[in-house]
Amino acid sequence: MKIGYLGPEGTFSQLAALQFSKKLKNYKMEQFPSIAELTIAAHQGKIDFAVVPIENSLEGGVNTTLDYLAFDCNLSICGEILLKINQSILSNSEKITKLYSHPQSIGQCGRYIAQNYANAEVVFTQSTAQAAMLAAKEEGAAAIGSESLAGLYNLKVVASEIEDVRTNTTRFVIVSKDCPPIEGADKTSIVFGVSDTPGALYKMLSIFDIFEINMVKIESRPAKTTLGTYVFFVDIDGSATDEKIKKALEIIQYKSTFFKNLGSYKQCNNVLDKNALHFKRGRV
Amino acid sequence: MKIGYLGPEGTFSQLAALQFSKKLKNYKMEQFPSIAELTIAAHQGKIDFAVVPIENSLEGGVNTTLDYLAFDCNLSICGEILLKINQSILSNSEKITKLYSHPQSIGQCGRYIAQNYANAEVVFTQSTAQAAMLAAKEEGAAAIGSESLAGLYNLKVVASEIEDVRTNTTRFVIVSKDCPPIEGADKTSIVFGVSDTPGALYKMLSIFDIFEINMVKIESRPAKTTLGTYVFFVDIDGSATDEKIKKALEIIQYKSTFFKNLGSYKQCNNVLDKNALHFKRGRV
Repeated sequence: MKIGYLGPEGTFSQLAALQFSKKLKNYKMEQFPSIAELTIAAHQGKIDFAVVPIENSLEGGVNTTLDYLAFDCNLSICGEILLKINQSILSNSEKITKLYSHPQSIGQCGRYIAQNYANAEVVFTQSTAQAAMLAAKEEGAAAIGSESLAGLYNLKVVASEIEDVRTNTTRFVIVSKDCPPIEGADKTSIVFGVSDTPGALYKMLSIFDIFEINMVKIESRPAKTTLGTYVFFVDIDGSATDEKIKKALEIIQYKSTFFKNLGSYKQCNNVLDKNALHFKRGRV
Repeated sequence: MKIGYLGPEGTFSQLAALQFSKKLKNYKMEQFPSIAELTIAAHQGKIDFAVVPIENSLEGGVNTTLDYLAFDCNLSICGEILLKINQSILSNSEKITKLYSHPQSIGQCGRYIAQNYANAEVVFTQSTAQAAMLAAKEEGAAAIGSESLAGLYNLKVVASEIEDVRTNTTRFVIVSKDCPPIEGADKTSIVFGVSDTPGALYKMLSIFDIFEINMVKIESRPAKTTLGTYVFFVDIDGSATDEKIKKALEIIQYKSTFFKNLGSYKQCNNVLDKNALHFKRGRV
C-alpha cells in the first residue's frame, strides 16, 4: 500500500500522513513536490492514498486541493485529520533580512512579520520544508515553519508559536481512487454549482432545511467560467447511505448545474498536537 | 490626491490604477510592495485611494485583501474595475528551467505549466513584476505575467494567453478611508459572521429573500477563531441608501456575530482589455 504526501521531509503534510499510517500495517510512503502532482498520482492509481491539506483555520481553503477534487480528479475522501499548526522562525543568522516560507504560512504569521520583520524580504516557497532548506544555506535568511524542521535542516529555533491566532489548525483529508465504504461514517462532503438566478443558493440550502440536515461547512470557489460564478463545497453531518441524506443529495444533484459527491467518512474531533508526533531524518 | 497600488511597475494593479486615475485631474501615484502595506497606508490616511485586487475568476478571492477589509482596516469601497488578465511566458533564454511568478498567476496557468514546463522549478514571487525583474537577470529563467512587462524589463514574449480558461478576469476595488457618497451607487458589499447553530447561514440569506434583494456574490473566509467558523462576503444589487436595503442590513447586523458594511458603489459591467491601456517606463 502506498501513501503519498506533500514533501520534502518535515512538512505538516508528512506529520498528517504519519498519523494516518498508524492505522495501517504494510505501507510505503512517497513524497511529491506539489499538491497537483500528489492528487494526480492518486487519481491515476499510482498511489493508494494521498494525504492533502484542504483548509486552515486562519488562511482558509487550500485552492489547489479544492480545485483538483472538484474539477480535475476522480477521488473520494475516506478520512480527515486535524493538525494543530505552530509556526516558528528558524535560522542560524544573528540578523535576519530575508524570510522564506509557503504563502499559507506567511499568511498565518502576517501580524508577527509586520511587527518584527517589517523590512525583511519575504520569499514564497513551495513548502515550509523547502524554505528551511534554503534558509540553512543562506546568511541572513530564516524560514517560517514547524519546529521539527530545525532538527532536519540544522537550524536554530529563533522564535516559536508566532502565528497570529493561537487556534491555528489545518485540516487534511485522505483521498483515494478506490475508497472502501467507511464503517461509522458520519460526515459527507459535496460540491455543487448553482444557476445564476436570484436566490439560487438560498433555495439550495433550503433543501438541507427541509430534511433537517446540519451543514457544518460551506466554502465558495470560482466555477472557473466567468467572474461571479461559484461552486460551493459543503460538509454535512451524516453519511450518504442514510435515507434522508440520500434523498436530499438526489434533489441537490437534480437542481444544481454541477454536482460531485466527494464521499462519506468519519468526522475527526480531536486536534492533534504536532508535539505528539516524532519523526527522524531518513525514516521515510 | 494620492493613489496607491501594488507595485513594482507593470503589475496588473498598476493598469487598474491608471484606469481609475483617468477620472481624476490632480493626482500622484505611489507604489507599495504588498497588499498589506497598501491597505494600511489607506487606513492611516497616508494615501487617499488604494487600488487593490479582490478576486479573480480562476483563482478566487484575494485572501489578504478580504482579510484586511474585514478585520484590520477601516476602509470603504468606492468603486470597482474589471480587468481582463492575459498571462504570458517572458524570457530571454532558449531553454527554460525555472518559472517565476505570483502564486495567483501560477494558479491561473496550472494546466499550461504542467503540459509545457512539467520539470521546471516554480518559484513564487510577491508580484508578476518582481518575477520579470528576476527572470531578466537569470539564465534559464522565465516570468509569467502581463505582456506589458516584456518592454519594461527587456524580456521576450515566448508564449501569450497561456491561462487555463479564456475568461480570466480580475476584479479590483478602489478603497478609501473617507469615501464620498457615490451618486448612482447600485451595488453594496457587506461582510458578516453567523453563530455556529444549524441553519444559521440559511436564515441569514432568508432576509435577502424577504426583502427581494438580489445577492450577486457570496464568498466565505475563515473567521480566524476556530476551524469551521466563517465570515461571508456578500455583494448585493442596490445602494445602502435604498429603503429596503437599509432595513435588510439592519436585521442582518442585528442577527450576525460580526458585521461590516463595506460600502455602496457603482457596478462595473465592462471588462477592460489590458491592450486598451498603454504605459511607458518611468511614467509613474
